[in-house]
Amino acid sequence: MSTQETHRIWAIEEYASLDEPYYEQVGDEEQLFRTAFEQKLPVLLKGPTGCGKTRFVEYMAYQLGRPLTVVKGQETASDLSPSGLPIVTVACHEDLTASDLVGRYLLEAEGTRWMDGPLTRAVKGGAICYLDEVVEARKDTTVLIHPLTDHRRILPIDKLGQVIEAKDGFLLVISYNPGYQSALKDLKHSTRQRFIAIEFNYPPREIEAKIIAKESGVDMNVALDLAKLGEKVRNLKEHGLGEGVSTRLLIYAGKLMVKGVSARRACQVGVVWALTDDGEVQRSIEEVVSSIFE
Amino acid sequence: MSTQETHRIWAIEEYASLDEPYYEQVGDEEQLFRTAFEQKLPVLLKGPTGCGKTRFVEYMAYQLGRPLTVVKGQETASDLSPSGLPIVTVACHEDLTASDLVGRYLLEAEGTRWMDGPLTRAVKGGAICYLDEVVEARKDTTVLIHPLTDHRRILPIDKLGQVIEAKDGFLLVISYNPGYQSALKDLKHSTRQRFIAIEFNYPPREIEAKIIAKESGVDMNVALDLAKLGEKVRNLKEHGLGEGVSTRLLIYAGKLMVKGVSARRACQVGVVWALTDDGEVQRSIEEVVSSIFE
Amino acid sequence: MSTQETHRIWAIEEYASLDEPYYEQVGDEEQLFRTAFEQKLPVLLKGPTGCGKTRFVEYMAYQLGRPLTVVKGQETASDLSPSGLPIVTVACHEDLTASDLVGRYLLEAEGTRWMDGPLTRAVKGGAICYLDEVVEARKDTTVLIHPLTDHRRILPIDKLGQVIEAKDGFLLVISYNPGYQSALKDLKHSTRQRFIAIEFNYPPREIEAKIIAKESGVDMNVALDLAKLGEKVRNLKEHGLGEGVSTRLLIYAGKLMVKGVSARRACQVGVVWALTDDGEVQRSIEEVVSSIFE
Amino acid sequence: MSTQETHRIWAIEEYASLDEPYYEQVGDEEQLFRTAFEQKLPVLLKGPTGCGKTRFVEYMAYQLGRPLTVVKGQETASDLSPSGLPIVTVACHEDLTASDLVGRYLLEAEGTRWMDGPLTRAVKGGAICYLDEVVEARKDTTVLIHPLTDHRRILPIDKLGQVIEAKDGFLLVISYNPGYQSALKDLKHSTRQRFIAIEFNYPPREIEAKIIAKESGVDMNVALDLAKLGEKVRNLKEHGLGEGVSTRLLIYAGKLMVKGVSARRACQVGVVWALTDDGEVQRSIEEVVSSIFE
Amino acid sequence: MSTQETHRIWAIEEYASLDEPYYEQVGDEEQLFRTAFEQKLPVLLKGPTGCGKTRFVEYMAYQLGRPLTVVKGQETASDLSPSGLPIVTVACHEDLTASDLVGRYLLEAEGTRWMDGPLTRAVKGGAICYLDEVVEARKDTTVLIHPLTDHRRILPIDKLGQVIEAKDGFLLVISYNPGYQSALKDLKHSTRQRFIAIEFNYPPREIEAKIIAKESGVDMNVALDLAKLGEKVRNLKEHGLGEGVSTRLLIYAGKLMVKGVSARRACQVGVVWALTDDGEVQRSIEEVVSSIFE
Amino acid sequence: MSTQETHRIWAIEEYASLDEPYYEQVGDEEQLFRTAFEQKLPVLLKGPTGCGKTRFVEYMAYQLGRPLTVVKGQETASDLSPSGLPIVTVACHEDLTASDLVGRYLLEAEGTRWMDGPLTRAVKGGAICYLDEVVEARKDTTVLIHPLTDHRRILPIDKLGQVIEAKDGFLLVISYNPGYQSALKDLKHSTRQRFIAIEFNYPPREIEAKIIAKESGVDMNVALDLAKLGEKVRNLKEHGLGEGVSTRLLIYAGKLMVKGVSARRACQVGVVWALTDDGEVQRSIEEVVSSIFE
Repeated sequence: MSTQETHRIWAIEEYASLDEPYYEQVGDEEQLFRTAFEQKLPVLLKGPTGCGKTRFVEYMAYQLGRPLTVVKGQETASDLSPSGLPIVTVACHEDLTASDLVGRYLLEAEGTRWMDGPLTRAVKGGAICYLDEVVEARKDTTVLIHPLTDHRRILPIDKLGQVIEAKDGFLLVISYNPGYQSALKDLKHSTRQRFIAIEFNYPPREIEAKIIAKESGVDMNVALDLAKLGEKVRNLKEHGLGEGVSTRLLIYAGKLMVKGVSARRACQVGVVWALTDDGEVQRSIEEVVSSIFE
Repeated sequence: MSTQETHRIWAIEEYASLDEPYYEQVGDEEQLFRTAFEQKLPVLLKGPTGCGKTRFVEYMAYQLGRPLTVVKGQETASDLSPSGLPIVTVACHEDLTASDLVGRYLLEAEGTRWMDGPLTRAVKGGAICYLDEVVEARKDTTVLIHPLTDHRRILPIDKLGQVIEAKDGFLLVISYNPGYQSALKDLKHSTRQRFIAIEFNYPPREIEAKIIAKESGVDMNVALDLAKLGEKVRNLKEHGLGEGVSTRLLIYAGKLMVKGVSARRACQVGVVWALTDDGEVQRSIEEVVSSIFE
Repeated sequence: MSTQETHRIWAIEEYASLDEPYYEQVGDEEQLFRTAFEQKLPVLLKGPTGCGKTRFVEYMAYQLGRPLTVVKGQETASDLSPSGLPIVTVACHEDLTASDLVGRYLLEAEGTRWMDGPLTRAVKGGAICYLDEVVEARKDTTVLIHPLTDHRRILPIDKLGQVIEAKDGFLLVISYNPGYQSALKDLKHSTRQRFIAIEFNYPPREIEAKIIAKESGVDMNVALDLAKLGEKVRNLKEHGLGEGVSTRLLIYAGKLMVKGVSARRACQVGVVWALTDDGEVQRSIEEVVSSIFE
Repeated sequence: MSTQETHRIWAIEEYASLDEPYYEQVGDEEQLFRTAFEQKLPVLLKGPTGCGKTRFVEYMAYQLGRPLTVVKGQETASDLSPSGLPIVTVACHEDLTASDLVGRYLLEAEGTRWMDGPLTRAVKGGAICYLDEVVEARKDTTVLIHPLTDHRRILPIDKLGQVIEAKDGFLLVISYNPGYQSALKDLKHSTRQRFIAIEFNYPPREIEAKIIAKESGVDMNVALDLAKLGEKVRNLKEHGLGEGVSTRLLIYAGKLMVKGVSARRACQVGVVWALTDDGEVQRSIEEVVSSIFE
Repeated sequence: MSTQETHRIWAIEEYASLDEPYYEQVGDEEQLFRTAFEQKLPVLLKGPTGCGKTRFVEYMAYQLGRPLTVVKGQETASDLSPSGLPIVTVACHEDLTASDLVGRYLLEAEGTRWMDGPLTRAVKGGAICYLDEVVEARKDTTVLIHPLTDHRRILPIDKLGQVIEAKDGFLLVISYNPGYQSALKDLKHSTRQRFIAIEFNYPPREIEAKIIAKESGVDMNVALDLAKLGEKVRNLKEHGLGEGVSTRLLIYAGKLMVKGVSARRACQVGVVWALTDDGEVQRSIEEVVSSIFE
Repeated sequence: MSTQETHRIWAIEEYASLDEPYYEQVGDEEQLFRTAFEQKLPVLLKGPTGCGKTRFVEYMAYQLGRPLTVVKGQETASDLSPSGLPIVTVACHEDLTASDLVGRYLLEAEGTRWMDGPLTRAVKGGAICYLDEVVEARKDTTVLIHPLTDHRRILPIDKLGQVIEAKDGFLLVISYNPGYQSALKDLKHSTRQRFIAIEFNYPPREIEAKIIAKESGVDMNVALDLAKLGEKVRNLKEHGLGEGVSTRLLIYAGKLMVKGVSARRACQVGVVWALTDDGEVQRSIEEVVSSIFE
């Protein structure tokens, strides 16, 4: 998070990480994603809130923007590639329409002008298109991606009367949280059977502590305590807690401590109250907090 | 799937396969479709997700673009016809409106301009119009096709004040998955009794293996194993699995193996996780996977 | 169905049958319709899917375009009248709005331009206006026709600030299928008590066979078998079949046979699969098929 | 109903009966309406389908266009007044919006132009405004009429930023059929307590026969039989018939007889089938028909 | 109610009573309203249909337009102030949008033009803004008034990118009928706890009779009888009557009597039929009528 | 609340408190908010109606506009900073769309013009953006804030095809009332786990009395009585009262008393009737009132 003295503006299809995103690998997820990219297989990422799916996609976009193997001693990574692949992220919601993804006509003085939507921009520009929480989207949007996810790799735009073939580099990545799934909001089989699927979960304690320390600035001991707190709170999930605590909230607590807020107060504000409004569940979590931060 | 260094753009009503689509015939479906085309009978294709309905329509469009019988030794097929019939595909969804199919007015500097929709383009151009998953569409769209599917073969466009008679070559093809049908989303009898119907299912094991080998690049032994996996998973359907595994997912698994992912991991990512989020069902499928890929 | 090498375009209010539509009379329906036309009584046609209501209206429009009695030996019918009355058909659906029927403003370079809808065109041009499956329409559309169906015969167009009196020749005809009626979708009494009503049903076997032979090209024996099939399938209606088989589907089966498809396969594709997705009901119908086409 | 060789077009706010509408008075309804008009009291008419509410309003508009008492022998009625008061009728429905009643902006070449709706036209022109089946309208439309129906007699038009005071002569008349009322569609008390209410019913047999004879052209004996039929069918109302038969349908039957259709067939087509789709109820009504027209 | 030979048009934000509205005070409601106005406290008026809430707001607007105490013998009230404060009344309904209150862009030849809505006009002009039956409005409209009803007294207009501070004199008054309240349509606490609340009811018999006599022109004896009728009918409320009779309807009955309609007929048309369609309830009320007007 | 002789107009992104808002601190809320601001952690404020959340945000915006520690005796606070940080407040509701927050195109004579919404203005201008009662908003709006509340701090604007990075100073603050929460309207975990959370409640009696006295002008004794009333009424919450009384209503009662309304009447109008329509609950509260103000 660099300092912004004024606001910087990007074209959507060119937005990319300038610095390597910080991501701790857990298994073979990088190899799987890279293979899918090479074989042009659409990818579905499943996992709970704040477990790092978005960060992983950014990390992969950055990695795919440069050769996998660098001959040591000869070139620095930054010589090979100034930045990663562009990545177009769309946070899906129940009012997201096909026009929001594909584009629409704008009325101009000299007549209407077509404005490409983010999906069309990614298709034309060969970018990674990441549809976050795709099950939230309306059905017309999920149907849109069908011809992009089979052998045709095309995007028909009825309002233009055109069919666009995707440029090399284009890859569709979608994600959702299976914990949320309900009968009403489910990916139809005709959609989901178009993706390979990688399941994510919270990182193991050691790795999570490493992430917390790196992101919040607390020392490793405190980070390990916060990671332990995360683990224990996730085990409370059956006791009225809708979802486990995300790594992000543990980092928030760390950031408050770094500025002098006491550990218990930081956990109350950054974890307990942030997670739930239910007094009883709050007390259970606070007991866990006290057992760790005496 | 050819390489696209830049994005290619087609007019919707001219989009056609340049190469013969790969399709393995199972029964007399080609003869039936050809007869329907000659007799101008609208066609309904029924079958499960990913069993090849869309591919079949593309294949038929390609075949109908050339004479049925070729005198051997004199001409090559490519001399007779450079490409297949154009095919206009519309993936239906619950927000698809009549205007999306028929057309709408666009505002231009010099006034409004009428923009034909994909159905109108197919009617005027004599193309095959393929409405995929038609039961998802709103009722106004299904009613639109009534006058196109009886002896009149006309499309009234109220907003233009016109009635368009379909050009020769126009054929309406619709599809749906009877496994999805519910009381709410059903084709009304006044609509369905306007089509002859061909039922599809997953291909038999030998044919499916042939398809998998051809599409993914795995050798025939692995392809037969994957086809066996498909068969067994489809038999699990009563055990909590919404729908059987599509040929497409089996091909995905093959494509991962070809790049060095282990068989079991490829099946986990390409089949098990792709099919379901339910841990118990996942375990059942993984047992099947282990019994085949030891 | 004549061959269309290019697409022919009509103005909606001028669309009429150029050739006499083929229609087999069953009772006094022609006399009743003709009397209603002379007395300016709106007409409601009731009957099941595909029993010939639409064809009957086209036939009557054609007949009313010429004198009833022709002095034999002096003139041919075609001398008297080149074509029938124009007929404006609107297939109703639940998203049909009043604007779709009456008209709307279009934005032009020189300001807005009013575009008459199909009902207004029929009112001004003295055409027959046929609203097919009227119960599907939204309530605002059925209310629209009230002042056109009492002594006033006027159409108020609020957006124009005008009241239009119908030209002689204008007749409103509506239809629906009582088998579909539900409490939700019913014609209100304030609407239905504005029409005389004629009930239709499938034609008797001999007449239906005549129609099948004429339309499909099969010989009379096969046509009689198909008509017998129709009769028997309609008797299955209580056994899980939503609606009886239409004459149209029987003709489809005939058309497939004429091109060399076997009788049983033609009935399977044209009747059994077209009628239902339910395996058990399909087997019942196929038993009927086998008993007729051994 | 005069012959219209071409279509005549009126401005909505000028539409009025050129000839005295035929109406048979049953009680003191004319005096009550006239008093309400003089005292500027809004009027609510209640009654079943087709009992003559609309005709009564037209009749009163015609009568109010001339002095009540004419000195005999000196002037003819037509000398005194060429026509009745203008009457603006709006058939309400559940999609009727406030804009449909009050007006909207139209886009013109030189900018937007405001187009008064029918209610505004009546308010400005001092016409009778008749909202038929007002309970069908959306709530925003009923609220619109509140300031017009109390001592203020104003119509605020927010989109114009104006408040219009009603011209003398303006009277709001609404109607509905209490037989339809449901909990969902009911006039709110804050609306209904702004109107005096007159209840209508079908006319007594002698008067109804007079109306039938006058309107259809049958002789008085047949008309009396049809009126008797009406009475008896209305008594069947509890036996599955949603609503009694309207005078209008009895006239329809008469009009068919006059052209040579047999009495029983005319009643079947004009009454029985027009009233209901239910076979059992149809048989009950046909028994009544046979008992009268042997 | 003065005679309008043509229609008079006001700017919404200038509409005010030219004459002192007739209002009979019942308690300290005038003092409370005046204090609220001085302290800039928003006011909520609660009470049944037609009990005089609207009239009270008009009366107060008129009173607040002039000094409270007039030195007798020196000036007439009309010298002090030609008219009352302007009052902007909005009858709320379930389709009332924020744009209806705040304003919208109109398209003009030279571009879009912003058109202030009635609330913005009241805020800028320092008028009383009266939102009648506010619980009927959509939630976006009630939220709009939050910043106007706390210490900020501002109206943010997002579409203009502006924040408007209310001019002195601006006062928000809302009303509703607690008898209508349901769980669905209730004022949220975050809204209602921004208003002081004054409860209204029908006036006591003597005062109501005075009002009836003044408004309808009947003599005091008849007026007392009508007021007694009102009281008794309100006691019938538990017996199937949704709401008691308003003072307005009693005045209507009086106005009919003044023109020669008999007392019983006037009460039937102006009270009984106006109140209810239920035959049994009608009979109960008519018994009350007969017991008073023998 | 200063006197406004005319209406003052602000640009939304510049609206700020000119005077220091009056706020009584209860705990360490100021330190927590300041730390969150420095660490760029989004803040969620939870608490009941009218407990001071909005005032607190205004107070913090004012404080953050100047250095925290002032060297006494050298400068006055007003020398350091003429005003607070700008604060963009959006009262959320169920019809709030993404366009309302982000912006929209306006049609101008020379074509369309993009108009930034309040969120975009805050992002570009580095203002505090306060979304009040955020759970009321539609899902598309809550999803909008996701990329603004993680490490990216970006706002993608699809309709512009742009990604905006937030300027320093931008902080997202949201609030809601946990007492209202229902299953339907709940903050999704993927949203809520992006905020630290501070819980608010009504201030303790002494502090609340201080606030009441300061805001209404009553003396401290009366203020203490009003605060006691508040406490007691909040304890009635289980007895049918949806929500406790806000400090704001207690101030209203005080403001009425200051102008001479008796204490009991002031509490009835400002507290009892304002809180509830239920007669029984009203009586319970009035008993509490009488026990305090004898």
